[in-house]
Amino acid sequence: MLYFGSDYQEGAHEKVLEALVRTNLVSSPGYGTDSYSEEAREKIRTACQCQEADVFFLVGGTQTNATVIDAVLRGYQGVIAADTGHIAVHEAGAIEFGGHKVMTLPHREGKISASQIASLVAAYEADDNRDHTVMPGMVYLSQPTEYGTLYSKAELTAISEVCRSHGLFLYVDGARLAYALAAKDNDVLLPDLAALTDAFYIGGTKCGLLFGEAVVIPVHDRIPHFFTTVKQHGALLAKGRLSGVQFGALFTDNLYFTLGRSAVDFASELREVLEKKGYVQPMKNTTNQVFVTLPDEQLRTLSEQVVYGFWEKADSTHTVIRLATSWATTREQMDQLLALL
Amino acid sequence: MLYFGSDYQEGAHEKVLEALVRTNLVSSPGYGTDSYSEEAREKIRTACQCQEADVFFLVGGTQTNATVIDAVLRGYQGVIAADTGHIAVHEAGAIEFGGHKVMTLPHREGKISASQIASLVAAYEADDNRDHTVMPGMVYLSQPTEYGTLYSKAELTAISEVCRSHGLFLYVDGARLAYALAAKDNDVLLPDLAALTDAFYIGGTKCGLLFGEAVVIPVHDRIPHFFTTVKQHGALLAKGRLSGVQFGALFTDNLYFTLGRSAVDFASELREVLEKKGYVQPMKNTTNQVFVTLPDEQLRTLSEQVVYGFWEKADSTHTVIRLATSWATTREQMDQLLALL
Amino acid sequence: MLYFGSDYQEGAHEKVLEALVRTNLVSSPGYGTDSYSEEAREKIRTACQCQEADVFFLVGGTQTNATVIDAVLRGYQGVIAADTGHIAVHEAGAIEFGGHKVMTLPHREGKISASQIASLVAAYEADDNRDHTVMPGMVYLSQPTEYGTLYSKAELTAISEVCRSHGLFLYVDGARLAYALAAKDNDVLLPDLAALTDAFYIGGTKCGLLFGEAVVIPVHDRIPHFFTTVKQHGALLAKGRLSGVQFGALFTDNLYFTLGRSAVDFASELREVLEKKGYVQPMKNTTNQVFVTLPDEQLRTLSEQVVYGFWEKADSTHTVIRLATSWATTREQMDQLLALL
Amino acid sequence: MLYFGSDYQEGAHEKVLEALVRTNLVSSPGYGTDSYSEEAREKIRTACQCQEADVFFLVGGTQTNATVIDAVLRGYQGVIAADTGHIAVHEAGAIEFGGHKVMTLPHREGKISASQIASLVAAYEADDNRDHTVMPGMVYLSQPTEYGTLYSKAELTAISEVCRSHGLFLYVDGARLAYALAAKDNDVLLPDLAALTDAFYIGGTKCGLLFGEAVVIPVHDRIPHFFTTVKQHGALLAKGRLSGVQFGALFTDNLYFTLGRSAVDFASELREVLEKKGYVQPMKNTTNQVFVTLPDEQLRTLSEQVVYGFWEKADSTHTVIRLATSWATTREQMDQLLALL
Repeated sequence: MLYFGSDYQEGAHEKVLEALVRTNLVSSPGYGTDSYSEEAREKIRTACQCQEADVFFLVGGTQTNATVIDAVLRGYQGVIAADTGHIAVHEAGAIEFGGHKVMTLPHREGKISASQIASLVAAYEADDNRDHTVMPGMVYLSQPTEYGTLYSKAELTAISEVCRSHGLFLYVDGARLAYALAAKDNDVLLPDLAALTDAFYIGGTKCGLLFGEAVVIPVHDRIPHFFTTVKQHGALLAKGRLSGVQFGALFTDNLYFTLGRSAVDFASELREVLEKKGYVQPMKNTTNQVFVTLPDEQLRTLSEQVVYGFWEKADSTHTVIRLATSWATTREQMDQLLALL
Repeated sequence: MLYFGSDYQEGAHEKVLEALVRTNLVSSPGYGTDSYSEEAREKIRTACQCQEADVFFLVGGTQTNATVIDAVLRGYQGVIAADTGHIAVHEAGAIEFGGHKVMTLPHREGKISASQIASLVAAYEADDNRDHTVMPGMVYLSQPTEYGTLYSKAELTAISEVCRSHGLFLYVDGARLAYALAAKDNDVLLPDLAALTDAFYIGGTKCGLLFGEAVVIPVHDRIPHFFTTVKQHGALLAKGRLSGVQFGALFTDNLYFTLGRSAVDFASELREVLEKKGYVQPMKNTTNQVFVTLPDEQLRTLSEQVVYGFWEKADSTHTVIRLATSWATTREQMDQLLALL
Repeated sequence: MLYFGSDYQEGAHEKVLEALVRTNLVSSPGYGTDSYSEEAREKIRTACQCQEADVFFLVGGTQTNATVIDAVLRGYQGVIAADTGHIAVHEAGAIEFGGHKVMTLPHREGKISASQIASLVAAYEADDNRDHTVMPGMVYLSQPTEYGTLYSKAELTAISEVCRSHGLFLYVDGARLAYALAAKDNDVLLPDLAALTDAFYIGGTKCGLLFGEAVVIPVHDRIPHFFTTVKQHGALLAKGRLSGVQFGALFTDNLYFTLGRSAVDFASELREVLEKKGYVQPMKNTTNQVFVTLPDEQLRTLSEQVVYGFWEKADSTHTVIRLATSWATTREQMDQLLALL
Repeated sequence: MLYFGSDYQEGAHEKVLEALVRTNLVSSPGYGTDSYSEEAREKIRTACQCQEADVFFLVGGTQTNATVIDAVLRGYQGVIAADTGHIAVHEAGAIEFGGHKVMTLPHREGKISASQIASLVAAYEADDNRDHTVMPGMVYLSQPTEYGTLYSKAELTAISEVCRSHGLFLYVDGARLAYALAAKDNDVLLPDLAALTDAFYIGGTKCGLLFGEAVVIPVHDRIPHFFTTVKQHGALLAKGRLSGVQFGALFTDNLYFTLGRSAVDFASELREVLEKKGYVQPMKNTTNQVFVTLPDEQLRTLSEQVVYGFWEKADSTHTVIRLATSWATTREQMDQLLALL
């Protein structure tokens, strides 16, 4: 079988695994107080051009979103997100479990805009009964989005300005950030995220690590006692060094960027071939997720050889599927896939 | 430096790491639906002599406790625990974050008894105002306890009977279970835990894995929709196979038991030497945690060469420390430690 | 000033107040264990033709919704509601505070339909990733709705059937129930609500009482330990007799129905006059809320003499307002209002 | 029957009821925005000699405690209380429902001391693992305590100083505050509470009102968006004027103080008679709760004519009961009770 179902189907990039093996029996203190973690934090600060940043390592994406959002919001506040946002759909109510409403806005290609956010806030502020409603306290974006699309620097800057002028905390979910950073048309770099957001996370699980997400908080102590909130959310790894070692390898010799580039290049190639062959590609993007509409009959054949992600029914005889490349995709796998299409 | 500070200072046992390396680039589906996870679940069911059991893999101990307890309790119920229990002290309020009170009982050597539990329940049931109070819904034990002590099979059976006759869910935290199972005087085996409890977890993080705890629920579907609760708590690993591969290795060729035995033997040796040399040993036990009272002056010297765990001040000039052996402790490290004492 | 802003602008109906005055210095036990409360519960059971029903008295609507919903749902479940539902908009996130998602459906005249609910559940059940999403566990309706509209017996029966066939708890918010029961075209009586729902509440605050809502749970013990959940939510009145005395008066000599009728008749009269005079009436209904579109200029004049509820801007020069009649509306007030229009 | 079981057995003081009757049909806006509420707030500010104070009216005690504590604490913080504190025992886990741990200290006659609090904070601050534990964020006291005892001004000042020097929010539960203010040996007046605490509440339910508690926050906006938190907790009364009217009457002509005095005088008289007759009085105090130990045989006889509160078994043949006087206790009832003893 060819696995193009998602970007978390294999273990870790070989350089990451090597680092884990190399350091395996070294003794170190727990909970991220070790030297590997401190070195990895330094590398991330440098990559973000933000020496002041707090950096915390958590284990997975839902956990990271729930922990950051709960740490930031007061009880009477909610978080604004696209109706397609991961926190609105696929986190089993983790944000509500923490006591907060996800205030959804209709997405456009997976994205929301500065003007949508401004309108929501303006409506809240103009509402005589606003004290009876949830106060918007935060904005959640994903980069790339769940549709693989990207916020441009101009879009993100506009959103950041709306947030700052209304006291909204801006948080970016970077579960697949490597594939955004490597996209040809991307103009939002790590230092831009550090400059424009209040917090974001650099995804490791889907981008070359066994697991791990690095939360970057550009302004030191912007989220007081975050360590304890992480612990309370069950998100604190006893062997915190594992995150340090892995992120250390990921931010050595530009590995995070090169493995993102590999996946994105394969995805571009796949999109070109699909285009040439006349396939319909809804939700077209420039990152590692390729959406394509197939006749159900063809899909049945394909599914015998390829693991893909079901997205939605297009009509009674066609289906939209997702083919995801990743850091682990090989030339050989691509050639086999292309041959099948 | 010699590290005897805790049992989570190194990575994974070599056989576990080998299994991760060997399977690293194999593709598999996510979230624990892979074949490695299923094989590991089968091995655990077999080891527990409980083919019906549900087995779930979570990442860390606090997370596992919070997730299980929240999944089991209704909103109006609390969980009974020793006042020294991990959930009562060192989980940053994770149980309360889930909305539940930890109803503490005074410990004796880290343990609580069936009669204490029965008395608490009897007092609740006799209270005319019980509807204004938190209803006990569950009992939390740790095996071994935070003091390294063990519940005997007779003690656990008595507690189990009290729980069953009063509708209390019995849950055992096995963060260091390998060190209980390997203790010379232990008579509570995995099948006993399966027979006497409603859920327990087999600790991996402190017992040879990079990370991972296996929740065993002996009666199938005793906790409905637990998968979704795990996801909601941010405790679901995308690459669930990592847990499967690790626990698979841990339950091959008795590794879980042999690595526990190694740590326990070193601890016994240490206790004997301390005894011979006339050191005071409070909270004596038979597992991998060794508590010893030292003059502060001696401690200052020791701390230049040994990482230990501070426990508490014994008096103005003496301190109780904890020296923990683990699966990673070597003969050489032991000899160096003994030479220093 | 003429008050037509809402239905909670005055104290209690005179018969209710008389009952409170008459019993004021009688001593009784607390928390609803008194004889007044028991008598009121019996009267409500009789009115609902449901002798088995559990009846609980709470203080206000938001509190009642939050308490019932939290008592019913398990942690992994959410509640389905119209996007205009009170719990979705005007309860300041009280449902999310309890840990649950409000799963909104687009309303039609304030209502949702059986087929919408069935579709949502079907989509959930067909979703391969449903274990990563919030499980629908309950349906919330309001009768009358926030738009003053009514579910017919046929509509409610269809919804009830969908709920029962999919294990969804059906709950009806009756904050303004008196005005539904008294509406000319209403065919959903109290015994119908008892037969078709799992719980509903009979609103007192907006229908003649100082405060108070009576939760009716037709099947005894359908919500176990609800008393303790009520206490935990801070919704248990120490002087529970106050609710008993008030609801006792309300369910004596058909007072609940006659005071509802008075308000509804005035509202019908108002609608007819508005119709005759050519005013636009959006969201037309048959209960006590009258919506009318006015030119902003006329509104400015009106607002000097009438307190009304702002609803929304119709366009740049017109506004939709709400005029609410209530049990307290008098002939004299009506005549003055009509004269102004 | 003679009712001495508690202080919430009757309705409202006649002057309070008169005010409700007098204003019953006046129309007013809802949610506490009416003029009655504003006047009552002014009277309370004046009584507290604190013109800047925010004053909010809530309905009941458990609700008020849960709402204030949840509004004040951050997710990682807990509230310190006596182990006999109402929030620790008789609120059905309402504080934990809000996500917070109640950190109990052993009481002495129902009270905790500045030095106990200081020790707890010092232990927290000295703990190397404090980031893994719940951070103390607040202190909860009751005045009078659940045992009827009083904090002196010196004791409260000392506690206030500890709180201020460690950033702890000091909150006083005044469910029975009228009976503290009227006690002969009391030296803590309303202005002292305003000067020494961060918030306290003036209890109405047990002190002459149908219901209602007035939260006083001496420093304006010390709890931002508290109105919305009140709404979210289901604690916002639609007809807020009911609280305003009642508290307005309570703070007219010193009614709060005179009705407290009446109850306290009767209690003192009762204590003297019990003393003279040689009864054992545990937990002696100077407010409205009288505790007395009776032989079980005598209690059986008494219970045929007197409603009392069971407190605890003193030994196998004796029981401690509570006899509570209140604003509603009459000379005649007292004489009858005394005749029975």
